[in-house]
Amino acid sequence: MNFADWMSAVQDRTEAALATYLPPADTLPARLHDAMRYAALGGGKRVRPLLCHAAGAVFDASSDELDRAACAVELIHAYSLVHDDMPCMDNDTLRRGKPTVHVEYDEAIALMVGDALQSLAFQVLAETPAAPSRHSRLSSMIALLAHAAGSRGMAGGQAIDLAAVGRTLTLAELEQMHIHKTGALIRAAVLLGGHCGEADDAALANLTHFANRIGLLFQVIDDILDAEASTATLGKTAGKDAAQNKPTYVSLLGVSRAKELAAELRDNALAALASFGARGERLAGLTRYIVERDF
Amino acid sequence: MNFADWMSAVQDRTEAALATYLPPADTLPARLHDAMRYAALGGGKRVRPLLCHAAGAVFDASSDELDRAACAVELIHAYSLVHDDMPCMDNDTLRRGKPTVHVEYDEAIALMVGDALQSLAFQVLAETPAAPSRHSRLSSMIALLAHAAGSRGMAGGQAIDLAAVGRTLTLAELEQMHIHKTGALIRAAVLLGGHCGEADDAALANLTHFANRIGLLFQVIDDILDAEASTATLGKTAGKDAAQNKPTYVSLLGVSRAKELAAELRDNALAALASFGARGERLAGLTRYIVERDF
Repeated sequence: MNFADWMSAVQDRTEAALATYLPPADTLPARLHDAMRYAALGGGKRVRPLLCHAAGAVFDASSDELDRAACAVELIHAYSLVHDDMPCMDNDTLRRGKPTVHVEYDEAIALMVGDALQSLAFQVLAETPAAPSRHSRLSSMIALLAHAAGSRGMAGGQAIDLAAVGRTLTLAELEQMHIHKTGALIRAAVLLGGHCGEADDAALANLTHFANRIGLLFQVIDDILDAEASTATLGKTAGKDAAQNKPTYVSLLGVSRAKELAAELRDNALAALASFGARGERLAGLTRYIVERDF
Repeated sequence: MNFADWMSAVQDRTEAALATYLPPADTLPARLHDAMRYAALGGGKRVRPLLCHAAGAVFDASSDELDRAACAVELIHAYSLVHDDMPCMDNDTLRRGKPTVHVEYDEAIALMVGDALQSLAFQVLAETPAAPSRHSRLSSMIALLAHAAGSRGMAGGQAIDLAAVGRTLTLAELEQMHIHKTGALIRAAVLLGGHCGEADDAALANLTHFANRIGLLFQVIDDILDAEASTATLGKTAGKDAAQNKPTYVSLLGVSRAKELAAELRDNALAALASFGARGERLAGLTRYIVERDF
């Protein structure tokens, strides 16, 4: 299967699996369930599920088990977008080309949608059908995702980000923020894929190294796109970093040096895959895709 | 140990365990961690941890394992209070005699505190040190807690509650709301205690029956206290149900009939403990405590 077809296949199965895991829109409380599906379905490039499946492919992990891990990470990501868009946070009105949840529904629903999507993420992962011998690893995977989502991961990164608005950050401080805010969940996606395939400690160390580079790469590209692209292309409000006076790689380095940094991170990420040989091709493909993306 | 001493001991060890599980207030992001500790420590009667330990006592469960389950439930409860108090929800300014988190800090911090406490709950439970043979049950326990917290449990109950403000509910509709909003987490506390002690299916069925009665009992008493007590005694804003025109057992039944219902639920709860004999004494003690409480 070529890379584009593989990507479509993973995106499709992720959408189908999420649609199954999410409560039906006609079960009570119907408005909450409708809003949860609005927030989690039909949008996004599913970068984290793609990374999870690509890491699992290195170790021939079961696709069904990967669906659980991939969707758990994506549900955490979806919840974080809903809460980040709320008026007390980024106060954004557009996401993936649609009104954000608190605009389409209301703030209380947005709060509860995020809360319930987070619970669902852990439920989906904990309900993975697994042989008894696999359950010890499953507990570790749940702890890993919880840590990545929490105050020492994604939520903590969000707090660092909010505290940084209007301040001048050093490059090191900016990196610290992103290692938490976006990096932690991307790392979780890659590592959960490895765990689904029973990766050993050495392989997990390589995956961690790869994921750390990819996480920063993703953010550098995001900053470049935010500075250069239009709102119509992004499907979310463009130029808002500059408007909110938020520190970015572009504001600190300029576009040209930010692009050099991206190339460097890409090369380091690809180098971390060397020991996987041909089995790392999906992860390598995603690395190039992230660099070349215009979303 | 008499009942009062047992209660104090469980409350103390819950506080100590929570203080250990929560990130130190001086680790980054410090303001978020400080606010998480503000929200979760030093307050509350720890009813859910007490129920968890009391259910575990029926089956001689390990106290260390019960601490994990009890604190996981309490962290979910603590997160729900922080989010429920926010301006877009109940907009309350006082909780356990202290300013609510969004008043003491700000709304963005309150949002992130709730989010991070929820993640921590699942991390604490997933990191339970357990023999390999116990991990299959641990996965079930995590799924149980996630379901109880989510859109078909507590968060769903909150959505039903908000949709009911200003409407006239039937007694059956009010019960449906509370079975979700407070009942689901109380049931989770009791069942997790049983799971810690390797309770079998028949015992879990008895615990479920007991927990369903206790959950409603707790809410009926809450409504009576809200109608009768003062803000100083409650440590939270009293009389707010009536002020917000929220349906309650007292508004539907009157105080006198609500008290009769409480007595009936108490007797049914105690009857569900019969098969446990003397080992159910802590659960029986808590049932009486909930009826007689003035908090």
